[in-house]
Amino acid sequence: MNHSILSGIRSPQDLRSLSNIELKNLSNELRKQIIEVVGTNGGHLSSNLGVVELTIALHRVFESPQDQFVWDVGHQCYTHKMLTGRFERFSTIRKKDGLSGFPKREESPHDSFDTGHSSTSISAAYGLLTAKKLRGEPGKVVAVIGDGALTGGMALEALSHAGQGQNDLVVILNDNKMSISPNTGALSEYLSRLTMGASYQRFRYRVDRVVRSIPLIGVFLAKIVHRMKRGLKGLVFKDNLFVDLGFEYVGPLNGHNIEELEKVLRDVRALKRPVVVHVLTRKGKGYSLAENDPSTFHGIGPFCISDGKVEKFDTTSFTEAFSRSLLEEASHDPRIVAITAAMAKGTGLAAFQHRYPDRFFDVGIAEQHAVTFAGGLAAGGMRPVVAIYSTFMQRAVDQLVHDAALQKLPVVFALDRSGAVPDDGETHQGLFDIALFRPVPGVSILAPASAREMSLMLSWALGRDEPVIIRYPKAACPTEQSAFDLPLETGKGVFTQRDGADILIACTGGIYAEVHEAANMLARSSLPVDTYNLRFIKPLDEDFLVSCASGYRAVLFVEDGSETGGIASDLASIVRERLPHVLAASMAFPDIFYPQGTRQEILSFAGLSAVHIYDEALKLRSYIAAGQSR
Amino acid sequence: MNHSILSGIRSPQDLRSLSNIELKNLSNELRKQIIEVVGTNGGHLSSNLGVVELTIALHRVFESPQDQFVWDVGHQCYTHKMLTGRFERFSTIRKKDGLSGFPKREESPHDSFDTGHSSTSISAAYGLLTAKKLRGEPGKVVAVIGDGALTGGMALEALSHAGQGQNDLVVILNDNKMSISPNTGALSEYLSRLTMGASYQRFRYRVDRVVRSIPLIGVFLAKIVHRMKRGLKGLVFKDNLFVDLGFEYVGPLNGHNIEELEKVLRDVRALKRPVVVHVLTRKGKGYSLAENDPSTFHGIGPFCISDGKVEKFDTTSFTEAFSRSLLEEASHDPRIVAITAAMAKGTGLAAFQHRYPDRFFDVGIAEQHAVTFAGGLAAGGMRPVVAIYSTFMQRAVDQLVHDAALQKLPVVFALDRSGAVPDDGETHQGLFDIALFRPVPGVSILAPASAREMSLMLSWALGRDEPVIIRYPKAACPTEQSAFDLPLETGKGVFTQRDGADILIACTGGIYAEVHEAANMLARSSLPVDTYNLRFIKPLDEDFLVSCASGYRAVLFVEDGSETGGIASDLASIVRERLPHVLAASMAFPDIFYPQGTRQEILSFAGLSAVHIYDEALKLRSYIAAGQSR
Repeated sequence: MNHSILSGIRSPQDLRSLSNIELKNLSNELRKQIIEVVGTNGGHLSSNLGVVELTIALHRVFESPQDQFVWDVGHQCYTHKMLTGRFERFSTIRKKDGLSGFPKREESPHDSFDTGHSSTSISAAYGLLTAKKLRGEPGKVVAVIGDGALTGGMALEALSHAGQGQNDLVVILNDNKMSISPNTGALSEYLSRLTMGASYQRFRYRVDRVVRSIPLIGVFLAKIVHRMKRGLKGLVFKDNLFVDLGFEYVGPLNGHNIEELEKVLRDVRALKRPVVVHVLTRKGKGYSLAENDPSTFHGIGPFCISDGKVEKFDTTSFTEAFSRSLLEEASHDPRIVAITAAMAKGTGLAAFQHRYPDRFFDVGIAEQHAVTFAGGLAAGGMRPVVAIYSTFMQRAVDQLVHDAALQKLPVVFALDRSGAVPDDGETHQGLFDIALFRPVPGVSILAPASAREMSLMLSWALGRDEPVIIRYPKAACPTEQSAFDLPLETGKGVFTQRDGADILIACTGGIYAEVHEAANMLARSSLPVDTYNLRFIKPLDEDFLVSCASGYRAVLFVEDGSETGGIASDLASIVRERLPHVLAASMAFPDIFYPQGTRQEILSFAGLSAVHIYDEALKLRSYIAAGQSR
Repeated sequence: MNHSILSGIRSPQDLRSLSNIELKNLSNELRKQIIEVVGTNGGHLSSNLGVVELTIALHRVFESPQDQFVWDVGHQCYTHKMLTGRFERFSTIRKKDGLSGFPKREESPHDSFDTGHSSTSISAAYGLLTAKKLRGEPGKVVAVIGDGALTGGMALEALSHAGQGQNDLVVILNDNKMSISPNTGALSEYLSRLTMGASYQRFRYRVDRVVRSIPLIGVFLAKIVHRMKRGLKGLVFKDNLFVDLGFEYVGPLNGHNIEELEKVLRDVRALKRPVVVHVLTRKGKGYSLAENDPSTFHGIGPFCISDGKVEKFDTTSFTEAFSRSLLEEASHDPRIVAITAAMAKGTGLAAFQHRYPDRFFDVGIAEQHAVTFAGGLAAGGMRPVVAIYSTFMQRAVDQLVHDAALQKLPVVFALDRSGAVPDDGETHQGLFDIALFRPVPGVSILAPASAREMSLMLSWALGRDEPVIIRYPKAACPTEQSAFDLPLETGKGVFTQRDGADILIACTGGIYAEVHEAANMLARSSLPVDTYNLRFIKPLDEDFLVSCASGYRAVLFVEDGSETGGIASDLASIVRERLPHVLAASMAFPDIFYPQGTRQEILSFAGLSAVHIYDEALKLRSYIAAGQSR
């Protein structure tokens, strides 16, 4: 009843027979379902509500899977999933073992390329299309990309390459004036100007139709209309940025009008040129709370549908701790500037932006530029802080090496969402940062276990003359305790519990909470352990660590990053070599990708939950008792 | 006598008093010096010859170091160096302890940002400028960027960000129609169209001057000329891509006419808007051999000035071995396609391009797009081979993770210039690839020690259903020997010398030559060792390796990559743990950046030359003799 049309759609074919009224109702059913499921599971709301009609129109005009879709970032694929046979499993989205919140080739032949990070769709689509042509297979490839994602450099690289290429590439520019934050940058302003030109263009479109209706048109008139006829009959704009890059440009279209979209898309499908179709949509469309505050409802935890409220917890997150520490530092050092790549809210920089608008820079989805821009600021005497998610920092590895580390420039990187990242799945885990950046000479890497340490570390970082990375998880900060207050000493950690036990558990800050919980469980089992927070991943004072470890029978290192290239196993090796009488073991993320789940589920899957740490400590105890070496 | 003007230039100030004829002579002296020194030392010839007049004009108009220059890539900075007090040291360029071939902040206050990799200049310049403004300091910042570098995504990210920003940013677009290879891509074609429009524009410029000379100009005429007057009196083009992004656009100018350049640059300096100045230059200008073949003379070893001939050696390079192996594979598998980011010659893909033009793709300087485009090709059923230098692959770490590894797509990465890279200095070393990619699940990493192994490995890689990296140095392939012929077994290495010695030296393929030399030296000292080529860095069959090591008294692992995150120390730990009776040691690049030098100088600096390996083996022998554990 609720989903009387939607539940009948088993494949995009089933859309063909629907009437306009049925399509309208289908849109409503889809929206209702999206709001309900995201309200329950959390997820990407605003972006998915914005593309309901667009997705229907695309699936009515193009023939998936012969025609292929690549959804940029992928956080707008919910309607696509429901229309391609996954309506019944839709309520499992983002849950452990459920549907992914992003396109996944393994889920459906209608998902032709996996996404998750921004700005990849045109490259991937052009690759798919080139493969099609080389294999002599028919079909179009359609990249659906937001105006936010278009600011990412690789999307522009792809436009430049694809603009001189095959005919059957369609780029749908889903223009909602937002990335996650409202868009910035000249490119974004440019799209606005294009849009404002729309009425002028529609006038020319009508002129064109009139002209074409006259059988014996004079040469003069023909010349006048020449420019508007390039490529496509109808809605073709004059020269613009996309035309400069070799594409036809069509639009802007009303992205919530299925009929208009379909009409134009049918022309586009017949076109033998690479084409950009500019579609205007509204983020959050159909759910007024999201329409009015699309950032908050971009990626959101479970919320109450009637009032939009998200359950609040009484704990401080690492993100909040960073946000506060930065404000504190900035208040007495005017050299501090902050940079985000379209993530002011998620990284906690919004407060800084509000307080110090002149010292805040949102560069758009452009991590590479963000880092080198920061390098320039540092070379010019400022103290830039780049706040970025660990997984997105993978985009700017070379820039950190080449434009910060090589020149010993004092750029501070605040890597949020390090370690296990809940819900978004394998594309968003922050497991590689330690391995990626530890080999870079001169770069320090710190990991706080608490709000107090965040503050100490940021202060330390801002006093250095080389790059510093501070990494922390998307999690609540553990309750403060006295050890966290101890002053920071370069390369040295602190005992967070020291009661003369014979086993020591030492960890990176991001997994301190689980270590602490394991220690409590062990204490309850009358098997006490001491605990130690490494604080520094690099530089690391080996002698100090060895002296700390030397009084124990066994030391267990726990790290919330990839085992390969991480420090836990290195530290265990060091202890084994230098303290032959001490058993040493290590735990970190084994060498696989980690699927979606809660933080606890991911840690359990990786063998890194408090229970696993508890078990490992028990094992060490039994070795000790047996007098064995491992 | 030869350099009578040039030798009198101690700083850019000294340029001010020169007459036009003296400037002309200065240009000739600079060119002569560049050709002579590059002929002796090797270096970047074509790009440096192209910007002699442009650099003179820039230094006459702008006031460095108050005005700051950022030289994109930096391989056009030789004139800049000679004009800023470094003429006398110029003959040391690219030599150990000599001047760097790239800008270096530590060399001169006139070098405001270090470069080496492409497309960073606008980001860095905008950072420097923003710092200036925040600190209330005067001056312009000038980014000098080639049309090739402009295709790099981060340059476009920077344009979009900077286009809405401060007034004092000047982007000099040095348009020579080349990156290292001739440029490709729609952006490049677009620049050509802009250039072809130049005569039309000059006509409009003249009209504009006439119009402005009439005191009482009518409203109608004013409207006609309105568009050409935006921003700058004179050479202002109509709307174009740069204007769309918020910049003024000036040009194209003849980059070899100092007077014309100066006239316009003075206007530009007075302008209160971010501006792109489009300058046409000719790569190799003034040296006809380079003008006619700028790719060959882009980066070149020492050559004979009269005929341009480079000394040929009788050895096969790894690059040539890759080139041949790929042709061989492609001849019987039509799914194989090859992709380069503006490096067809350097990577050895030029032969493939010639033989299979439809299966070859030069995407321009766009490593990120190259990798994701390859991902799309692989998802579409092809077998893409991406050939790229190790150091530039740092630009596409996320794409390898997100668009190849996560989707288990069969993309083969041929990482040339891995390990120690001669002459170019710290920005171009290939020391991080093992550490960066070893943590990525499912990615194999192989390192051939010979041409025969290159062939075996490429064949193996193309049969896998996941990404494979093959890494190899810029060096001659060691002479073939029978062990190299042994079939490849996943995860397993081969003994390259096995005479029952009690010490084994095991190495990554890229440093096999030095290990082999050390082994010969040891044999001559009657201290024979066995040697072993790991072949696989990942996956690595630990049991097999341990069984190989178990017969020895000591094993030394040698790796031509960064110690941190590398495998040598891991393997030594494994041997220590599993074979307590076997001494284990490891050698790799310590955790610092490595300056310019020959391969031998770099390896010596790192403690990895044949002599160092010899010494380490001696040390192990003395430990064995003393019956010590280390």
